[in-house]
Amino acid sequence: MSFSEFDIIRRFFTEQSVRRDDVSLGVGDDCALLRARPEHELAVTIDTMVEGVHFPPETDPEALGHKVLAVSLSDLAAMGAEPAWATLSLSVPEPEEWWLEGFARGLFTLATQHGVQLVGGDTVRGPLVVTTQLHGFVPEGRALRRAGAAVGDLVYVTGTLGDAGAGLRLALGEWASEERGADFLRRRLERPAPRVREGMALRGIATAAMDLSDGLIADLERICAASGVGAELWVDHLPLSEALESVVPIEEALSLAVGAGDDYELCFTVPETRAEEVEAICRRFDCGCRPVGRIEAARGLRLTRDGKPYLPSTAGFDHFTDR
Amino acid sequence: MSFSEFDIIRRFFTEQSVRRDDVSLGVGDDCALLRARPEHELAVTIDTMVEGVHFPPETDPEALGHKVLAVSLSDLAAMGAEPAWATLSLSVPEPEEWWLEGFARGLFTLATQHGVQLVGGDTVRGPLVVTTQLHGFVPEGRALRRAGAAVGDLVYVTGTLGDAGAGLRLALGEWASEERGADFLRRRLERPAPRVREGMALRGIATAAMDLSDGLIADLERICAASGVGAELWVDHLPLSEALESVVPIEEALSLAVGAGDDYELCFTVPETRAEEVEAICRRFDCGCRPVGRIEAARGLRLTRDGKPYLPSTAGFDHFTDR
Repeated sequence: MSFSEFDIIRRFFTEQSVRRDDVSLGVGDDCALLRARPEHELAVTIDTMVEGVHFPPETDPEALGHKVLAVSLSDLAAMGAEPAWATLSLSVPEPEEWWLEGFARGLFTLATQHGVQLVGGDTVRGPLVVTTQLHGFVPEGRALRRAGAAVGDLVYVTGTLGDAGAGLRLALGEWASEERGADFLRRRLERPAPRVREGMALRGIATAAMDLSDGLIADLERICAASGVGAELWVDHLPLSEALESVVPIEEALSLAVGAGDDYELCFTVPETRAEEVEAICRRFDCGCRPVGRIEAARGLRLTRDGKPYLPSTAGFDHFTDR
Repeated sequence: MSFSEFDIIRRFFTEQSVRRDDVSLGVGDDCALLRARPEHELAVTIDTMVEGVHFPPETDPEALGHKVLAVSLSDLAAMGAEPAWATLSLSVPEPEEWWLEGFARGLFTLATQHGVQLVGGDTVRGPLVVTTQLHGFVPEGRALRRAGAAVGDLVYVTGTLGDAGAGLRLALGEWASEERGADFLRRRLERPAPRVREGMALRGIATAAMDLSDGLIADLERICAASGVGAELWVDHLPLSEALESVVPIEEALSLAVGAGDDYELCFTVPETRAEEVEAICRRFDCGCRPVGRIEAARGLRLTRDGKPYLPSTAGFDHFTDR
């Protein structure tokens, strides 16, 4: 190693703009010391990303720093939790200064936007593997869980779907595109915007929620399994970006929208009586949201397009990410 | 992957004997939901171990499961915190059943001993890299920090030193030994016993504390730097195991005791007036402890042996672990 763990931590990971007053002791001792918020539960999530598995080799370190934190923030968003503290484990083969600087910049820019302080970490020599753990607060008993979807509830998604899946194919060079939309799609892959404020605003309204990391079919199935229900999914209602529609034919766009992961949008269920409230919330945060299906008693997912059974092509399903 | 992440989690990491009543929601949703203890601070630590860097290839998975948790427990011990919740990130190339079973057994056996519940995790395909994060409680303002050692304080260590360093050389095949002590030394490397109860009992008595992961010299220097002091270290007072003395000459044993890491004993400072209390505590827990130096005003470490300056041979310093 060109410089020691201690130097890495000091040089790149202690100068933070966020200094929370619930942090008694941050980076630099055997443990961090933190003060949890009274009458709240602590929401905790841990995520690991491996080079060559979750992101391509030679990924821009700034984009990586952004993404590893975004993925964890998205988990907090899916619980309706307010982000607070992060810890980071960074295994790097050769810690080069430009790489660490870029990584730290990507991480801290997003952390600052969400009021997150890095309170601890471990840096080791090894293959490029990054693990982030994030802690947030949610008022006692008010977290959005996967279990809770009821028969008749509408299924909503935020934003647009399939963009990151298209971005991955562009990043891997499987697709070439001169279209203006290509930049947007790659940005959606590399710089997901976790729906943290939306998740917090949905407390007490959504009956179940999850973030879309593995694709709509896989993730909605998990909500259904946890809730003991099934769902009809209206494929013709799925929100697609102009960029996605400009780059691929509609069939492929729909396949990506149901099958591809990494969009980090929220999928949640609400009683139909609260649909207007939900749409007002999403308008307020400029992300938009749309009803894309309905919870039903029969188990499993039933995909329809214009009322007819729909079978997606396999093109939309990720082969690169393996989770 | 021979089976999916979801199956791994369900099959090996959800059947736990520890079910804490401060866990509202454990493994299986986007986040765990936890209830922190009122009037306590939360102590949080994260540690990563990489195959070929922190442990040799072909390490017994049960020993690895034990060790990754032991390392984090040792950090909590060094703060005087009571262990509560763990999260685990496991990157494995090929998740074979026998390996996962062994790893989970090692992890959960130790977790059960310390009342720790695994509340979340991420399992991914990749090089063998394990990250554990551990949360514990310490009454507000009572944590043992690195800063706090005062001039005149005695420096104590628990247990015996240098054993794990010798165990590593045996494990790597650099040393061969038929001595009966060799098994003990390898066990000290592979199955460290974190000094959790000792750390909790030292609250309000120790002025500074740390666990010995990188070797006595490196770690005591950190206490001194954080406290703005120096120390005299009495090398002839260092506690050595019979096993270590039976396997190597005394010069080499002392060099390991000051330089080698991975012992996971505690190093702490106490005012001389409280020495008897400290020794009574360590007798109660059967680990023993011994004064090995004294804090002084002049910065830096001053090593002496029978009152004369001591220069350790480099043999005791780890070349395998790189932290």
